Amino acid sequence: MDAEYVAERERLIAEDRQWRVDALALGQATEAERKADEIVRKLRAQENETVWGPNAPPIPGSLHLFPGMGFLTARETILKTKVYSILSKMPKGGVLHAHLDAMVDARVLLDLALKYPAYHVRTDVSLTTETISTTLPEFSLLKENEWTAPASLTAETYTPGSWVPLAQARAAFDPSLGGPEGFDKWVIGALTINPTEAYHTHNTTDKIWSKFQSTFAGLNRYLPLWTEYIRQFFLSSVEDGISYVEPRIPFFCKYMIGADGEENVPHREWLIAFDRVVNEVKVALANQGRADEFVGSKIIYSALRNCTPDELEWYLEDCIALKQEFPHLICGFDLVGHEDPLNPLTYYMGPLKMFVKRQKELGLDIPFIFHAGETLGDGSPADMNLYDAILLGTKRIGHGFSLVKHPRIMELCRERQIAVEVCPISNEILRYTGSMPMHPLPILMNQGIHVALSSDDPAIFGNMGLSFDFFQVLVSSEVTGLITLKEMARDSIKYSCLDPDERARALSLYDKRWLTFVDWVVDTFGEGSTAYADRN
Amino acid sequence: MDAEYVAERERLIAEDRQWRVDALALGQATEAERKADEIVRKLRAQENETVWGPNAPPIPGSLHLFPGMGFLTARETILKTKVYSILSKMPKGGVLHAHLDAMVDARVLLDLALKYPAYHVRTDVSLTTETISTTLPEFSLLKENEWTAPASLTAETYTPGSWVPLAQARAAFDPSLGGPEGFDKWVIGALTINPTEAYHTHNTTDKIWSKFQSTFAGLNRYLPLWTEYIRQFFLSSVEDGISYVEPRIPFFCKYMIGADGEENVPHREWLIAFDRVVNEVKVALANQGRADEFVGSKIIYSALRNCTPDELEWYLEDCIALKQEFPHLICGFDLVGHEDPLNPLTYYMGPLKMFVKRQKELGLDIPFIFHAGETLGDGSPADMNLYDAILLGTKRIGHGFSLVKHPRIMELCRERQIAVEVCPISNEILRYTGSMPMHPLPILMNQGIHVALSSDDPAIFGNMGLSFDFFQVLVSSEVTGLITLKEMARDSIKYSCLDPDERARALSLYDKRWLTFVDWVVDTFGEGSTAYADRN
Repeated sequence: MDAEYVAERERLIAEDRQWRVDALALGQATEAERKADEIVRKLRAQENETVWGPNAPPIPGSLHLFPGMGFLTARETILKTKVYSILSKMPKGGVLHAHLDAMVDARVLLDLALKYPAYHVRTDVSLTTETISTTLPEFSLLKENEWTAPASLTAETYTPGSWVPLAQARAAFDPSLGGPEGFDKWVIGALTINPTEAYHTHNTTDKIWSKFQSTFAGLNRYLPLWTEYIRQFFLSSVEDGISYVEPRIPFFCKYMIGADGEENVPHREWLIAFDRVVNEVKVALANQGRADEFVGSKIIYSALRNCTPDELEWYLEDCIALKQEFPHLICGFDLVGHEDPLNPLTYYMGPLKMFVKRQKELGLDIPFIFHAGETLGDGSPADMNLYDAILLGTKRIGHGFSLVKHPRIMELCRERQIAVEVCPISNEILRYTGSMPMHPLPILMNQGIHVALSSDDPAIFGNMGLSFDFFQVLVSSEVTGLITLKEMARDSIKYSCLDPDERARALSLYDKRWLTFVDWVVDTFGEGSTAYADRN
Repeated sequence: MDAEYVAERERLIAEDRQWRVDALALGQATEAERKADEIVRKLRAQENETVWGPNAPPIPGSLHLFPGMGFLTARETILKTKVYSILSKMPKGGVLHAHLDAMVDARVLLDLALKYPAYHVRTDVSLTTETISTTLPEFSLLKENEWTAPASLTAETYTPGSWVPLAQARAAFDPSLGGPEGFDKWVIGALTINPTEAYHTHNTTDKIWSKFQSTFAGLNRYLPLWTEYIRQFFLSSVEDGISYVEPRIPFFCKYMIGADGEENVPHREWLIAFDRVVNEVKVALANQGRADEFVGSKIIYSALRNCTPDELEWYLEDCIALKQEFPHLICGFDLVGHEDPLNPLTYYMGPLKMFVKRQKELGLDIPFIFHAGETLGDGSPADMNLYDAILLGTKRIGHGFSLVKHPRIMELCRERQIAVEVCPISNEILRYTGSMPMHPLPILMNQGIHVALSSDDPAIFGNMGLSFDFFQVLVSSEVTGLITLKEMARDSIKYSCLDPDERARALSLYDKRWLTFVDWVVDTFGEGSTAYADRN
């Protein structure tokens, strides 16, 4: 190629990528950043052959290996890669799309529940080797006077439908079904999605959503457990390099169950507990000299998009009341649930418009942060939600999977700095995309849409933290590198609901940690390192 | 919703869709067009429930039904729908992306080959019930003095590797393998892709491409058959409402085999035969009073992107020589083959630039019509081909599957009126998209890119004609309707290589046929029709 052509080609490529989040950063990268980026690109190229290539060792459960392949099958292999080991150390910024009910590892959740004698479990048929694979456990929190005597779900004498104390059910689980470990496997299987379900038996968005919904077992509606659950959520996020979380909390139920077993704990008491745990975690980290690793958490109030407009009015008023009492915690409002079959935003236009008006009167600011376009539809009501989300002034868009179809909305997102919460692994498991290489994320990035990578419901999908989502994104693109990921992570702080001064502090802490991370990558994997010598 | 909001919403939707090919046409549609469009939308909504919905009758080989599902599994069901029966009657315009070697139904091709005693077949192992499913037939055209005695591929006495006359191999195919019908099934299986291959054993682009490539058995390298093959291609296209075809002819081999069995028929004699058949088909149709149904055919000269730059120079010179002798036939140049593993355009930059220069000197116009971006890669060489195709001045883009990632290239396509040849079913079977609802076509349409829907290699995929591709597109979008399809079909004429006067005539003939079609839809399926009464 002659020099003139090469120059013209580079100009065209630069024009094409001018809007990307990394467009400026690539030019301003430090020497160390460039080195770290190159190291990761080389490792990726190597592992895309040795781990994901046609001659790589087989992965159980999959005929087909490639970078960005189905996460549920690839997960254990990802954990063994060098690229993952690097990304797991990367500072991630914030998680902006996270449903609180699915943020703590199912194993940890079960262990928490086993501690409380109020937890009971039952099944609607006797559990045998034949029935166990198709039978789901049902959980309940009983008041102390309703607690049942020790029994076994697997005994011949078990009466289907009768409650058994959870810990007892586990201890007495029949050895033919695996004993206590078989119990754990059965319960965790019910709380998560497995590869066969996602990639075979339930391999459409509608079907896998039905399985997905069944995994919400309501285990964390018990305030004593919930408090510990939130703590685990914060701490495990921090361990993955996440410094801020902005969960959507489902306020569908008006009351949680208190320590006494009574279902009478109102929303404001949830927030008091939440606030306390945020502060306790901050103190605990500060005591370890890690104060800079966690800047806090705010809450997106979430109602379910199957309620009536009248019911929604109640939630909106409740949200306002909570905002007035906890202005530092409530930071947004959303309607959640499976968009395709549930009500579109237009159905709620009256109350939503009124909510905006009421806030003006009261001098409040609770932005909408709507789920919209989480669909494969083209012109379907869920796809059309994007128009209404924009017209209602949404601060960010949750998922926006179909946003790439809409040039004018993307333009407005650029102009109005509306970021999109993209959940790559969630989209793949819920069958919006066949695999990461088919995912529309590169379209959004090249269109200059700011993206906050998120995990959505990691307890169910197995993508705890953000390392897995960053991994799938990185290995599926030859444009994206470490510097791109840094800018995406910074965007998850920039487009969060942190106040301007909190945000500035969070960004500055991020940049500091990033420098340490980059040096670590170069020291550990660069020329001269042991890892480098092993490789070459 | 208040009137002001409704108006604002409609304005936003209109802005978002302002670039679509149907944006103007929708406003200018006639009463009959509107009716026909509405009829098709209603039928689609009904059949999306009754044929493709969760409660529809099961389809063998598929756990999951939905509109736009995997074509190979859905094909027989599509044939039974009313929507298909309407689309099969729709005038389609031109086919602009069609590899000549895969344009005639495998059954018809086999029947043609069986007529010529020069065709022979062999296998490398003896065929038994165990070996048949993994053994491919190999075909050859033998000179008369090499013709072999009647024998059977399935006899115990068969020596693997020895040639058997094709017709004899069929007649003597062992009854335990299904006799002659078993032979047909075996051969056609080798010439086509089945659902298990596409959706299970070969379910990645790389793997299904390897199967895809094995289907090109070289059956049509025999001029006597080739001539009949072309005739079948034209006639079957006309039967599907296609009035113009612009096939890519592979000139990789320098010679075809002539009637005498000698491999010595040069490219110019192929074109003489091609020209003759075009004219014979025109005359034959005119004799039936159907002259308006076929405006002709032009050829995109195709080399394979695995040759060396030196070899390419030969092809380019050959293309120029053919253009000089057959200026009305040779209309473009392309490099074909699996983009991911084969050479990128940059590899051929020298000869390609020279080709442009040579044309200027000679006063010729042979536009590039490049395959580019037929890949899931992001920044991979195949994805980067899009930049080079644009810089080299491509007239259209073949596939452009990854084009949607490139905002600046899409803008240039709009400005320079570069249309994209989109092959929905091919993309789905070759696993670039999981299914039609995941296909990026709506993105291109909303970006104002002009699209010519094409069938690519229908003999292998089973999507003969264009009705199936139009079907999959129509059922996967609620925005797209009959008027959209009309504009896409007109674009396949507008962006063809027809001369301006030929193009004007083709468009005018198209519009005339369209009016007849629209009236037929309204008369046959509208209120007052028998079909309507049956439905309501």
